[in-house]
Amino acid sequence: MDWFYKQPVKIIFGIDKVKDLYNILKDLNYKNGLLVCGPSFAENGAAEKILDYSKGLITKIFSNIVPNPTVDNVDNCADVIRKNNIGFVLALGGGSPIDCAKAAASLCKTEDSIVLYHNQEKKFGKEHIPLIAVPTTSGTGSEVTAVSVLTNPHIGRKAPLASENFYPEYAIVDPTLTLTVPKQITASTGLDVLSHALEGFWSKDHQPICDALALHAASLVFKYLEKAYINGEDIEAREKMSEASLIAGLAFGLPKTTGSHACSFPLTNIYKLPHGEACAFTLDYFTRINAEAEDGRVNDFAKQLGFKDANDMADRIKELKFSMNMKVSLQDAGIRDEEVETLAELSIHPNLLNNPVKMEKKDLIEMFRSFK
Amino acid sequence: MDWFYKQPVKIIFGIDKVKDLYNILKDLNYKNGLLVCGPSFAENGAAEKILDYSKGLITKIFSNIVPNPTVDNVDNCADVIRKNNIGFVLALGGGSPIDCAKAAASLCKTEDSIVLYHNQEKKFGKEHIPLIAVPTTSGTGSEVTAVSVLTNPHIGRKAPLASENFYPEYAIVDPTLTLTVPKQITASTGLDVLSHALEGFWSKDHQPICDALALHAASLVFKYLEKAYINGEDIEAREKMSEASLIAGLAFGLPKTTGSHACSFPLTNIYKLPHGEACAFTLDYFTRINAEAEDGRVNDFAKQLGFKDANDMADRIKELKFSMNMKVSLQDAGIRDEEVETLAELSIHPNLLNNPVKMEKKDLIEMFRSFK
Ligand SMILES: NC(=O)c1ccc[n+]([C@@H]2O[C@H](COP(=O)([O-])OP(=O)(O)OC[C@H]3O[C@@H](n4cnc5c(N)ncnc54)[C@H](O)[C@@H]3O)[C@@H](O)[C@H]2O)c1
Ligand SMILES: NC(=O)c1ccc[n+]([C@@H]2O[C@H](COP(=O)([O-])OP(=O)(O)OC[C@H]3O[C@@H](n4cnc5c(N)ncnc54)[C@H](O)[C@@H]3O)[C@@H](O)[C@H]2O)c1
Ligand SMILES: [Zn+2]
Ligand SMILES: [Zn+2]
Repeated sequence: MDWFYKQPVKIIFGIDKVKDLYNILKDLNYKNGLLVCGPSFAENGAAEKILDYSKGLITKIFSNIVPNPTVDNVDNCADVIRKNNIGFVLALGGGSPIDCAKAAASLCKTEDSIVLYHNQEKKFGKEHIPLIAVPTTSGTGSEVTAVSVLTNPHIGRKAPLASENFYPEYAIVDPTLTLTVPKQITASTGLDVLSHALEGFWSKDHQPICDALALHAASLVFKYLEKAYINGEDIEAREKMSEASLIAGLAFGLPKTTGSHACSFPLTNIYKLPHGEACAFTLDYFTRINAEAEDGRVNDFAKQLGFKDANDMADRIKELKFSMNMKVSLQDAGIRDEEVETLAELSIHPNLLNNPVKMEKKDLIEMFRSFK
Repeated sequence: MDWFYKQPVKIIFGIDKVKDLYNILKDLNYKNGLLVCGPSFAENGAAEKILDYSKGLITKIFSNIVPNPTVDNVDNCADVIRKNNIGFVLALGGGSPIDCAKAAASLCKTEDSIVLYHNQEKKFGKEHIPLIAVPTTSGTGSEVTAVSVLTNPHIGRKAPLASENFYPEYAIVDPTLTLTVPKQITASTGLDVLSHALEGFWSKDHQPICDALALHAASLVFKYLEKAYINGEDIEAREKMSEASLIAGLAFGLPKTTGSHACSFPLTNIYKLPHGEACAFTLDYFTRINAEAEDGRVNDFAKQLGFKDANDMADRIKELKFSMNMKVSLQDAGIRDEEVETLAELSIHPNLLNNPVKMEKKDLIEMFRSFK
């Protein structure tokens, strides 16, 4: 088997690590930084704290970002970088601010709108300003991937954009930052982690290093997600979920995601399911389907995690969704019968080609119809 | 738990990948390369083949290297680099040529002897020429680590030297290159892989990413090493051992090695045991000892690999050593009773401090005496 591996992001992990920010920035000789975060952090004082920890090395805040960040968010952020001669970006938040910052840190070196790149009309050169990613959810793993998922609301399209530039210089993963994540976001983002681990593993482009990391990440999710959901202040559970999220990021970064992520895009775009909940919507179904792939890998994976087989693991995923109040049926998600065909069409996304079992429109329709 | 991770080496893995050398070098814009390899490769045509694959981008061969490379080997190699204005180094071989090349690629930017750095009198700056590592044994994992193990025969000292510069730009891992490794070297290098995986895992500086990779690598060794030993042309076994070696390299690179590697240095220096055989000499003993560490991690590791417990895994390691004709007793190794005390003293090396269970001179003496 042939494979390629690279993982250029340096990782600093641990309780209260964000308090070391000044030393990290000073060592890197970074100056005049922009903090990119969601509006709630700008309001609740979390952003101010980061500025304090930076002891003046971060000079400005950009917080005009929506969840599932838009191309306009990126264009505005790049403008702020250009106008203020910003030296580096620190992204604080869930996947949304991190993805916005990734794209803006390259876009700022051009005079373009990100739309050109999102439409695949242009590709970034190597020029970009450095990025430090500080995740506050245990979910996307965006702090270690080269992908930025952006939405163009003008044409109703959500799609990942990839560039080598998007690898952060550093990921600072401080589990204490996730203590305030509300119950439903803990559930949704945690299931995103599980989707990354499983999809990275069963992707047609799977490879050994990522396989080993996927197994590790999935085992943590099965052990700790429900604990973090039940008691958000359980610091051990939060720490293990931070570890799982990061390591699942490494596990899917190169093999890429597959069926569940492909189907998640219209579920988020049209039915407004949060990203992780949208992935989880089809994750147990894909677990069963992909267990039928010839190589038997999904069954092996499940057994190594202590399940009887892949079906047993799928049952556990379904249980987890129920117990954490995730949407599990068409009705829950507000999908009408007559919309299923369009939903299936919109799910035909390049990620679907990575799925180990081929899924065509008719198979997707059958799948969605089974979610009674 | 706090931890730091970085892994800057890009990895290209697969059968016949070395035949792509020209394209890899061209993409990197590398020119006027030096091939560093052992003398046997210069004689048996393997070196010439690499030159052919490089289509003129490698211009010179340096093959004046002994197993367990010496400080003189490095000084000479750096001289050749300087005199020929070499642009990059490609190291082809086991750990010995790779380690020599690593040190020479930095030393060539100074006018010094490597002895100054080996003695810790000086530290390298950032300047160095790039290195591509192409392993021909499944053993050291040197293709992904920042360490070069050098011997100063003038003072009888073998010790690792570390520098960020030593990370190769690329590791090209082509399992076909290991098909010619003789039986006893397959055994010894394969046990080096197992030592790296176990020691990386139980090191006091263990961390989750390396833990997951250690588990993966160890499971491959237990499954495939004996097969590769019995039939050196079993390409599946060779491929899995190449994978194991590389991934074990990632697993111990940051946590570092522990007791077995500490004890291996005098066993190689004085009693001429090959590196892997020297590590394996104490590996089952350390497995049992380290199972007693409070955290119970070694037992968990063994269970995840399908063993009853750490003792059961140690039994299997001992069996493997017997079945592959490794030295297992003081007598086998030519160690006389009255030499045990000195051997214990010489085993007190910084790596011993990473061992999860504290081992003092008296404990080492007791250990060695038990090898009847
Ligand atoms: N780049 C990648 O590799 C990658 C991978 C998967 C998903 N994504 C993308 O990431 C986005 C989703 O990111 P996400 O799931 O992390 O959610 P998010 O960033 O959209 O945040 C969701 C909500 O949680 C809140 N929040 C975040 N951290 C908090 C905290 N510590 N305390 C309280 N509230 C907090 C935010 O304010 C927001 O309202 C989607 O756009 C998705 O497509 C990217
Ligand atoms: N840098 C690191 O991270 C690291 C880690 C562990 C060990 N080491 C060091 O590496 C050295 C040992 O390396 P090694 O175990 O790979 O052995 P080696 O490089 O010394 O080679 C051992 C013998 O095998 C022969 N050989 C190698 N490849 C062959 C092939 N494909 N076909 C036929 N013969 C082949 C060599 O010619 C040599 O005679 C030691 O000095 C050890 O201390 C370094
Ligand atoms: Zn996701
Ligand atoms: Zn070794």
